Amino acid sequence: MRINSPYLLFLGDAADPLAAKVAQGIIDWRPENCVGQLRLDNCNADCGLQDMSLAEAVDAGAKTLVIGVANRGGVIAPHWIEVLAAALENGLDIAAGLHNKLADVPQLAEKANQLGRALHDVRHPTQEFSVGNGKKRTGKRILPVGTDCSCGKMYTALALEKGLREKGQSADFRATGQTGILICGEGVSVDAVVSDFISGATEFLAPAAADDHWDVVEGQGSLYHPSFAGVTLGLIHGAQPDYLVLCHEPTRTHMRGVPEYPVPSIEDCMQATLAAAKLTNPDAKFAGLSINTKALDDSEASLLLEQLEQTHQLPAVDPFRTGVDKLIDVML
Amino acid sequence: MRINSPYLLFLGDAADPLAAKVAQGIIDWRPENCVGQLRLDNCNADCGLQDMSLAEAVDAGAKTLVIGVANRGGVIAPHWIEVLAAALENGLDIAAGLHNKLADVPQLAEKANQLGRALHDVRHPTQEFSVGNGKKRTGKRILPVGTDCSCGKMYTALALEKGLREKGQSADFRATGQTGILICGEGVSVDAVVSDFISGATEFLAPAAADDHWDVVEGQGSLYHPSFAGVTLGLIHGAQPDYLVLCHEPTRTHMRGVPEYPVPSIEDCMQATLAAAKLTNPDAKFAGLSINTKALDDSEASLLLEQLEQTHQLPAVDPFRTGVDKLIDVML
Repeated sequence: MRINSPYLLFLGDAADPLAAKVAQGIIDWRPENCVGQLRLDNCNADCGLQDMSLAEAVDAGAKTLVIGVANRGGVIAPHWIEVLAAALENGLDIAAGLHNKLADVPQLAEKANQLGRALHDVRHPTQEFSVGNGKKRTGKRILPVGTDCSCGKMYTALALEKGLREKGQSADFRATGQTGILICGEGVSVDAVVSDFISGATEFLAPAAADDHWDVVEGQGSLYHPSFAGVTLGLIHGAQPDYLVLCHEPTRTHMRGVPEYPVPSIEDCMQATLAAAKLTNPDAKFAGLSINTKALDDSEASLLLEQLEQTHQLPAVDPFRTGVDKLIDVML
Repeated sequence: MRINSPYLLFLGDAADPLAAKVAQGIIDWRPENCVGQLRLDNCNADCGLQDMSLAEAVDAGAKTLVIGVANRGGVIAPHWIEVLAAALENGLDIAAGLHNKLADVPQLAEKANQLGRALHDVRHPTQEFSVGNGKKRTGKRILPVGTDCSCGKMYTALALEKGLREKGQSADFRATGQTGILICGEGVSVDAVVSDFISGATEFLAPAAADDHWDVVEGQGSLYHPSFAGVTLGLIHGAQPDYLVLCHEPTRTHMRGVPEYPVPSIEDCMQATLAAAKLTNPDAKFAGLSINTKALDDSEASLLLEQLEQTHQLPAVDPFRTGVDKLIDVML
């Protein structure tokens, strides 16, 4: 499954800029894949691309309309269907990472089938995977892991891919969640895979490669999250990471969604992750820490990164503030 | 989903007694649920029940024909379909734990639909589960865990349920795999659940209960198995076990299905499991060890159990040879 690029980004009637964060992510990390944006009346987001009609986007080369907006509930809004059907008629495929499926909307499924267009429901894998085999693969792999969900793992992975490429390395971001898949055009939403196949799906996603190639696998969840740790462990085992990066949001008071659960210490999380990773790659090690310091001011952020470097004797970066070169230096 | 009992056990054309081990498991643990067996020509298994035709089984009270045999590949054999269709016509539901689904055989699906009979494909959950919430539940829970797959976790769980009931305790086996579900008539095949919902499905399976009730949750896989550890971790977190039992097969030279992976030490496996379990139940502890000594003679088995008791300072039993009373004594 590969989403044809370039894209027309559909911002719909986004309630605010945050509602269009998927579109913004695509623009931030794959600007070359975006020809324009399509906004409905009452859209309160603007990603700064040229506003285009469906016909204009097709003239500009667009191949796929990507739904880059999430309304409340994360589902396909009924009033989007008319424009989505028109997109198919104009020659575009459609890609979405929403909870319900494009393919389950009869009007879209019939039209796509009739016209030979693709509907990519990236949250819902359609492939069959094998059970993981644990066999050591060639090539090098990096996996960001987190003290919690939603603490910067995807951003860190994309920044590492970009940094490695800028240094002339062969590197690919390997998406494991819907936003990452829409950004890079392919991947596997591992938390939607049947649980017997988590590690197998990850092995498929980051296969054997040239010895000097880097796959940067998008991390998911946390070994310390009581809802999702199984996904995280299967992902660690399947990825066979040579290098891990510990991602952390320092102002969070409890694990996301479960107020009874405190965020684990960085030290505990690193130890548990390393023990798990060594099962399938005995040489796994941490390259450093990636801290989301968005909630801190400049001096607080610098001080925190310094303190963490001293405590853990590893580089500590904020990909957004400092870049990830210190991590890449360890890996190269 | 509850399979109506009692059952007519379908042994088909089992190649040998081992091919009918699901049927044998049902007879061993729920003899009161079995009215008879149905064998085709060339059946090389005999579970010792009365041979019955479909009509005789219905007269004897049977409600469901349970496929208690696995042929090579674990699928529904084409030459079974005629007798399965006749079972529906005679008034029976059908239950199977095979890789393909009864519901995907058009002849059976149509007939079941037309006659109002149930087809239970227990390997393929049809429920929707919530994401695990990690909230501490009332009641007491026991979870056997293993150094590997297929080393006695289901047998241990069923023996603990039986032993607890014999001591007047309120106890339920909670099945997490297809054989366990067919034995006790309900459960969730957790390795077939979408990976985001492993712990949530386990929370559903062993819900809040009376303070003096014991749920004995069937374990799956091993934290040290590179193919399935994600399932194991989600199951540990969702089960919130008060007591763990370490299951081990002492003659195995490598992890099942992955010759590159040695079996972990009992000590390592207990430490890793306990660390994981304490996330959702800080009071989790091991009650003891359950060793599958089938490959040893009596004196070797006794010696090994003694040695393990000294090393780990916990009771070590073989449920088949010694019973599980020593484990229950720790729990009570």
